[in-house]
Amino acid sequence: MPTIFSSISAILTKEQEEEGKTTQKSQTFSPSPTFNFKSYMLEKASSVNKALEEAVLLQEPLKIHESMRYSLLAGGKRVRPMLCIAACELVGGQESIAMPAACAVEMIHTMSLMHDDLPCMDNDDLRRGKPTNHKVFGEDVAVLAGDALLAYAFEHMAIATKGVPSERIVRVIGELARSIGSEGLVAGQVVDICSEGNSDVGLDHLEFIHIHKTAALLEGSVVLGAILGGANDEEVAKLRKFARCIGLLFQVVDDILDVTKSSQELGKTAGKDLLADKTTYPKLIGIDKSREFAEKLNREAQEQLAGFDPEKATPLIALANYIAYRDN
Amino acid sequence: MPTIFSSISAILTKEQEEEGKTTQKSQTFSPSPTFNFKSYMLEKASSVNKALEEAVLLQEPLKIHESMRYSLLAGGKRVRPMLCIAACELVGGQESIAMPAACAVEMIHTMSLMHDDLPCMDNDDLRRGKPTNHKVFGEDVAVLAGDALLAYAFEHMAIATKGVPSERIVRVIGELARSIGSEGLVAGQVVDICSEGNSDVGLDHLEFIHIHKTAALLEGSVVLGAILGGANDEEVAKLRKFARCIGLLFQVVDDILDVTKSSQELGKTAGKDLLADKTTYPKLIGIDKSREFAEKLNREAQEQLAGFDPEKATPLIALANYIAYRDN
Repeated sequence: MPTIFSSISAILTKEQEEEGKTTQKSQTFSPSPTFNFKSYMLEKASSVNKALEEAVLLQEPLKIHESMRYSLLAGGKRVRPMLCIAACELVGGQESIAMPAACAVEMIHTMSLMHDDLPCMDNDDLRRGKPTNHKVFGEDVAVLAGDALLAYAFEHMAIATKGVPSERIVRVIGELARSIGSEGLVAGQVVDICSEGNSDVGLDHLEFIHIHKTAALLEGSVVLGAILGGANDEEVAKLRKFARCIGLLFQVVDDILDVTKSSQELGKTAGKDLLADKTTYPKLIGIDKSREFAEKLNREAQEQLAGFDPEKATPLIALANYIAYRDN
Repeated sequence: MPTIFSSISAILTKEQEEEGKTTQKSQTFSPSPTFNFKSYMLEKASSVNKALEEAVLLQEPLKIHESMRYSLLAGGKRVRPMLCIAACELVGGQESIAMPAACAVEMIHTMSLMHDDLPCMDNDDLRRGKPTNHKVFGEDVAVLAGDALLAYAFEHMAIATKGVPSERIVRVIGELARSIGSEGLVAGQVVDICSEGNSDVGLDHLEFIHIHKTAALLEGSVVLGAILGGANDEEVAKLRKFARCIGLLFQVVDDILDVTKSSQELGKTAGKDLLADKTTYPKLIGIDKSREFAEKLNREAQEQLAGFDPEKATPLIALANYIAYRDN
């Protein structure tokens, strides 16, 4: 996957050079005043939950389907499916066209968490307040249920996507696979694993991890929706960049919150990164530059949406602002 | 996945009823005398190895690609790719059309072995005479490399398959995914795991495990090749049944060899199933009935090929006979 950001420092330098040339560039778009992002998210999550519930039925062999459903239907904001559907609707497609792909990206996200939680990986006992999959079903079943969800994501896209030419389905299957494999999500995971205990991690290295581990599947989600909705190549490229920006933005903000908020404010242990001696943006460039970088990413994300129907772009703008300005 | 074999006992009863009605049914086809199965297998394996080598390049991040290539390029007979290509050629398609799918089924087979070998599954230290993937690269990387190969199988089929309508590519992607997920390979694995130490395993249960754990991906391999080569629905159905028969045949013969051959003859420890108190065909129906069942499966497999061009069917007939009459 070619990196869109040549490097953070280059972006920051460019920003400083351009400072003052235009005031417009430093403003983010405002979503329509009548738009309620929270209601929108809840509504989309509800449609997605219904579709997921119907996609993975409780059938024989019971144990594997129970394990798959346990993690898949455990809640969550369904950000990736929402991105997929919003991108499809942005370019004029119907929600129903993107729904199988939206379910597929959530299946992939879930399986990556299931495998991530395994004792040989992060060894986590809790996820979303519930025991992790392997704690309930055993490690062997958790590995297999993850594999089955990964395969099923492709099956579901191939079988359930209706009303679009087959060429598009083949293209989105290729896109999704690339975003999660050894040039996408897995690349980020393995580089992250190999970086543990390495104090030499620089900005480019950190960016590589986040662009792959977090942004790649967000990018996949947006690009799948856009292609299925009929986006042209230029639109796909803009939305791809949008997704990478918000993926990286998410991580930068996460790093900032970890050092600026209390555990009570975050709802999770604050200062974890410092304790773990983890490489973060504040550690590498300081809090102020990290905040500047987050602002820059949010602007850059929203600039990609400038040429689209403003009303239809509202959910994506609201999501970028939500990621940028969240408190926890 | 609906079971083609209602049950082994039903098949055996039917066979006894029909005995003597026709002598033709009890004969297997003879491959063309000029056909050299060993050369054919070596030639196909060589093309497949070259294609696999080019499909998964050694690139950054090195560790994950080294891990993927370590297991994928570790040799093996490449039976599944050969089945895929032979089925494509049987219905008039070119090898090149089926090659990406042939590579994909081998990627899936490899990743299933990698995850199977993990300490939380079979905990195997050796595979094909070499240390297993997790022994070399660590468990975390072995899990991720398996996930990446699974994803890449779909990416490769979507991107590298050329010269066929997209409808066919979407269809084979759906077929492959189904053959390996919670209604295919994974279903067989999880039922096998749950059956460990259970002395109540009957014939239907044993057949379920083998039809899913072994036959499903063989079926997928054949069906993918057939669809890509342009087979009609009737041809696909026949080849699907052929693959299930040889998949089950493989297991029945394996069970027979375990109790009738010495470790020296097998090249691996004989009597392992007895020692492990594993449910096998000889244990459930005795050696003679197991041999009858194997004969029946080989005949049934080859009967499916009767309507095809005899010369083009030769590799598949030879493979069935090879599986049926092997000594180790």
